[in-house]
Amino acid sequence: MMLNTISLGRHISGQFNHELESIRTYVLAMGGLVEQQLADSLKALHKQNEELAKRVIRDDHKVNAMEVAIDEACTRIIAKRQPTASDLRLVIAIIKTITDLERIGDVAESIAKVASENFTNKQYNLLVSLESLGQHAVRMLHETLDAFARMDVKAAIEVYQEDDRIDREYEAIIRQLMTYMMEEPNSIPNVMKVMWAARSIERVGDRCQNICEYIIYFVQGKDIRHTNPEDIKNML
Amino acid sequence: MMLNTISLGRHISGQFNHELESIRTYVLAMGGLVEQQLADSLKALHKQNEELAKRVIRDDHKVNAMEVAIDEACTRIIAKRQPTASDLRLVIAIIKTITDLERIGDVAESIAKVASENFTNKQYNLLVSLESLGQHAVRMLHETLDAFARMDVKAAIEVYQEDDRIDREYEAIIRQLMTYMMEEPNSIPNVMKVMWAARSIERVGDRCQNICEYIIYFVQGKDIRHTNPEDIKNML
Repeated sequence: MMLNTISLGRHISGQFNHELESIRTYVLAMGGLVEQQLADSLKALHKQNEELAKRVIRDDHKVNAMEVAIDEACTRIIAKRQPTASDLRLVIAIIKTITDLERIGDVAESIAKVASENFTNKQYNLLVSLESLGQHAVRMLHETLDAFARMDVKAAIEVYQEDDRIDREYEAIIRQLMTYMMEEPNSIPNVMKVMWAARSIERVGDRCQNICEYIIYFVQGKDIRHTNPEDIKNML
Repeated sequence: MMLNTISLGRHISGQFNHELESIRTYVLAMGGLVEQQLADSLKALHKQNEELAKRVIRDDHKVNAMEVAIDEACTRIIAKRQPTASDLRLVIAIIKTITDLERIGDVAESIAKVASENFTNKQYNLLVSLESLGQHAVRMLHETLDAFARMDVKAAIEVYQEDDRIDREYEAIIRQLMTYMMEEPNSIPNVMKVMWAARSIERVGDRCQNICEYIIYFVQGKDIRHTNPEDIKNML
């Protein structure tokens, strides 16, 4: 970790350093906003807070605008500063990271839309089953952003492995929802909405994994996508 | 169109031209493989061809390997040739395009997994309902790759708009599947698999839209993500 921090400093200097730092800061601000959106959408879902749900939907455009602005800043810095080696890898990692962050923003928006629907009290209990999965996803995103802020490869690998647990939690919920549908076929249309929301939340874990891969790619110069989980574990 | 081709040629020359062309060719080869995988997975689903389904699953690693190789070639060309303006936009567009292509490859893999499941004859009829949606998605991907090959912004905008029709077709299927589940609650676990497959196919349309956005970004230097559909129409 110490080593990584040093190499991060070594490659960046002067005006370029300043520009790259400001892009990184902007990415973290975008990440913070996305985390807030996701947490708020889940809160809106559990508290049946329509006001909050509406605000999340309304604010999605801010996430989108940040993605476009950071993308442009990245293209500009490549054209102007012609970075190589780890500087270039950082810019590429950022370009990819913001795509995943934007999609997590979309997840927040779609959860907020489910939160705006009307559920019966009984169906509302199903939404509660998403609470712990949702908290788990928010936590994983938070830790991902944390690893990104410090470009901490060890933390990135640990967060990466967390996705397995989210997957298992998700599968348990799906089984529970299917049982419910079989018992009360009339509830199917509403339960399906909860299903889609569960699926969306599960996907947040995949997106976080992607971002962790970019962190590892930046620090180690190694593309670990499509590496089997055992080998990733061995990197620790 | 003619103009775009000319400007494509003007910015690229000599050794750099050669390298960039070979990356573009490689992207098209990757696109061709992904299209084949998607078409095969759908064929395996409709013909209940387990052999074919297994082959699709086995070949997914080829798509992944191509993504990583192209990604590396893009980073190398940026570091070595330090492209600017439209050359740089092309490389960035390629980096983003292959991410979406790889995810379409994942969709093919997950459809192939559904194809390997056992369905009763009656449930098998539900899979048939995916046939036209699937063909539609394959066609959209084909046209997207075609627009990419020619960097044809007009074609890209037309393909972009096609997604609306895929969405409507998808929604009709979901309604049909929900009705079936309500009538035969015991079939729910299997119908859910068909649902996930339908959802995956629908997402292919979104991925194609992303690629069309990158084509437009490359040609016009304009980022049209998050632009409203009316404004995109007006670009024609």
